[in-house]
Amino acid sequence: MAKTIENRTMLTDLYQLTMNAAYFENNKNDEAIFELFIRGLPKDWGYFIVNGVEDAVDYSTNIGFEKDDLNYLDSQNIFKPTFLDFLKDFKFEGDIFAIKEGTPITSNTPILQIRAPRTQVQYLESMDLNTINFQTLIASKANRIVNAAYPAKIVDFGLRRAQEKDAAMLGARAAYLAGAVATSNVLAGKEFGIPLSGTHAHSFVMSFPTELEAFRAYTKTFPTNATLLVDTYDTIEGAKNAVIIAKELAEKGMMPNIRIVPSLGAVRLDSGNLADLSKKVRKIFDDEGLNSIKIFVSNDLNEYKIFNLREEGARIDGYGVGTEMITAKPVSAISGVYKIVEDEAGAKIKLSEGKKTYPGRKQVYRIADENGFYSHDILALESEDLLGRPLLEKVVENGKRIRPRRNLDDIRTYCLEEVAKLPASVREVYVKNPYELKISEGLQSLFSELSNKHYGGQKI
Amino acid sequence: MAKTIENRTMLTDLYQLTMNAAYFENNKNDEAIFELFIRGLPKDWGYFIVNGVEDAVDYSTNIGFEKDDLNYLDSQNIFKPTFLDFLKDFKFEGDIFAIKEGTPITSNTPILQIRAPRTQVQYLESMDLNTINFQTLIASKANRIVNAAYPAKIVDFGLRRAQEKDAAMLGARAAYLAGAVATSNVLAGKEFGIPLSGTHAHSFVMSFPTELEAFRAYTKTFPTNATLLVDTYDTIEGAKNAVIIAKELAEKGMMPNIRIVPSLGAVRLDSGNLADLSKKVRKIFDDEGLNSIKIFVSNDLNEYKIFNLREEGARIDGYGVGTEMITAKPVSAISGVYKIVEDEAGAKIKLSEGKKTYPGRKQVYRIADENGFYSHDILALESEDLLGRPLLEKVVENGKRIRPRRNLDDIRTYCLEEVAKLPASVREVYVKNPYELKISEGLQSLFSELSNKHYGGQKI
Repeated sequence: MAKTIENRTMLTDLYQLTMNAAYFENNKNDEAIFELFIRGLPKDWGYFIVNGVEDAVDYSTNIGFEKDDLNYLDSQNIFKPTFLDFLKDFKFEGDIFAIKEGTPITSNTPILQIRAPRTQVQYLESMDLNTINFQTLIASKANRIVNAAYPAKIVDFGLRRAQEKDAAMLGARAAYLAGAVATSNVLAGKEFGIPLSGTHAHSFVMSFPTELEAFRAYTKTFPTNATLLVDTYDTIEGAKNAVIIAKELAEKGMMPNIRIVPSLGAVRLDSGNLADLSKKVRKIFDDEGLNSIKIFVSNDLNEYKIFNLREEGARIDGYGVGTEMITAKPVSAISGVYKIVEDEAGAKIKLSEGKKTYPGRKQVYRIADENGFYSHDILALESEDLLGRPLLEKVVENGKRIRPRRNLDDIRTYCLEEVAKLPASVREVYVKNPYELKISEGLQSLFSELSNKHYGGQKI
Repeated sequence: MAKTIENRTMLTDLYQLTMNAAYFENNKNDEAIFELFIRGLPKDWGYFIVNGVEDAVDYSTNIGFEKDDLNYLDSQNIFKPTFLDFLKDFKFEGDIFAIKEGTPITSNTPILQIRAPRTQVQYLESMDLNTINFQTLIASKANRIVNAAYPAKIVDFGLRRAQEKDAAMLGARAAYLAGAVATSNVLAGKEFGIPLSGTHAHSFVMSFPTELEAFRAYTKTFPTNATLLVDTYDTIEGAKNAVIIAKELAEKGMMPNIRIVPSLGAVRLDSGNLADLSKKVRKIFDDEGLNSIKIFVSNDLNEYKIFNLREEGARIDGYGVGTEMITAKPVSAISGVYKIVEDEAGAKIKLSEGKKTYPGRKQVYRIADENGFYSHDILALESEDLLGRPLLEKVVENGKRIRPRRNLDDIRTYCLEEVAKLPASVREVYVKNPYELKISEGLQSLFSELSNKHYGGQKI
């Protein structure tokens, strides 16, 4: 996309501004380091797929208040004129280290590490969490669905149930990045170059006197490779009508002017017992020698239902997945957080019940066996020097990007290659032991030290 | 908002275009009528709050393909040049009837009824569902949370966990419309005029040598009505520090230059056993005569947790609700659908297993008792003339809006008034029998007739 990067400066929580007003007034703008990580994996998940980093970096390096933003803030009677003046030239001038989009990681792994004057590093929290939480959520969920279906294909059908436009667009991108082969979302196809997929609705069938006439009208316009929706009235009857159409198309032979061979590509089943119906429909086609017609299914699918369909011996070549992939239902959100880990006074730890953090600026090392398969990652202090591939790389220096955005197809290839190197046990639908993050000795001892000492002047 | 209405023409499913290509080539562009309704209520819900209609109407009445859209579609090698020519002047020229935003309704109630040439009415499906599904989802969820907490207040804290920017923005609007009193989302405050709310983060406390110094720094900048987050290290110790601050502020007396009385507004608890801690913190304040300090809580709240906190006698004045309000976790999506109900050949019915529809163009009547309280709605054919308030009103005629967008605060007032007139039993957190939609005799007999007859040339 050659578009202007959106300015998301005002897409923030009020407390970023009130905190910054207090930092400003108390002359507390020394360097601080924050890390963004996800607290825990949802039930059954083996890993996350990092996503949203490219957008987060773009938003972070392009913050800046417009005149009407400052007028609005002034109108709220919260801030003093000196602070509003400070905001006039407010921008990000620090460094950002990030894990590449498409990388599988586990919980507590820092996805971003940001170092900047305190007001700047604090300010990025809300917008970076918003975009990384969502994009990582959907890429991770989609990758689970892709794994469950493999080698059958997954197509994103989520637009109508996505949580508004951005979710539909970036959800389509996340699903593709994580292995889906296409999307029904035309704008996502246009903006991101994702292959498009689409057939017709029940309403199309209901718009003609008979199903057969509807199929004939549709394949008149799309004589090659069309998909017919066969369940408007009765799936078995619909499949038999599809056979009639397939034979009619075959009889037409080579179309002279465009040199294509008319043929029916697939049928779609969208209701009823999909395992049972897919087997019956497959038999109807195979009995007629129409082995090339594929069977595509939809209807509130998710990785668990796909797992069950396969257990039941369903004959399915592709799945259209809508609601549960684009919203990650029932997970809905992951617990990405953004925490201070160090400042000029040293490493920082938070001790709130159930919300402890690992202190200090860190690096993550990926450990591979002799065949290149990954056994685990190690979370270490940056000052430790471990073997293994470091995952956090510098992408922004002094407020400027030093790496261009990566191409979506390259990220997708990288993602699928990385996932293939994970232990098979973490790629299952029901994962008991997620991909492991070990804690280095140095980090463990710093954590213990800070947890045990009287901290911040208070007894813990 | 005086902004240009966004063009969402390309935010569609590919099948809207492939179907339209087939309708176009088969000369099938007669008038058709579609209705948008929600299939079923999520578990425990008593009703939905209609929302997203204003945006859906704006998008619908402003469709139109740009040159680069057509170039993109051409590049996909799916469509013939004659159809792409047809799209050049494609726009919506029909009528839209809608239920007002803020109206509580139950499942199967048509929210939109759209009449237009078939290609136009079909085309609106994806974008209208996307925006109405999400905005109705969040307004409905937020209203449940508001009811559970009443008379305590609800503030939207959802930005960081919302499913990207639009969800954060329109989710904040939906929550406010449905009774939340404020949002932390600064851009939502600016765009929609929603009151803002915000305090500070744990990182702020951790940025000073002691919690007390952090509190002092914060209240130096915000001497009146500040909220202090007291759980960074230990909630009880934090509350005691808040007492020290409240006393220091009170000692300052009237500030001469701005004529305000410094005072601490509230504390926020964000971890631990909130019921127990709220009682202990309340006692600490009350023992010091600081009865005016309010207690505000957050930490992955939802209507069920709020219900339980109240059962446990928690002393809470306000709740900051994030993830579960802005994403409607675990519901994540409602099953809004858009179905053909009538065309020139007569009333239409869909019979797919578990997905039957009520045929014919309809109206919804709201039935009130002598005191103005609502007992139920009736779904009837438009041709029937029933008593009661009709809910579907014409908002678009021949492609033009005939009613301006309503003001958000007016919608909010209307919503809360309408909800107050519903049976108390449907406003509970655990609803067994949702608000009722009765089916008129005329509609029931048409449904039976079409269900029983051989339809579409096929035996059902």
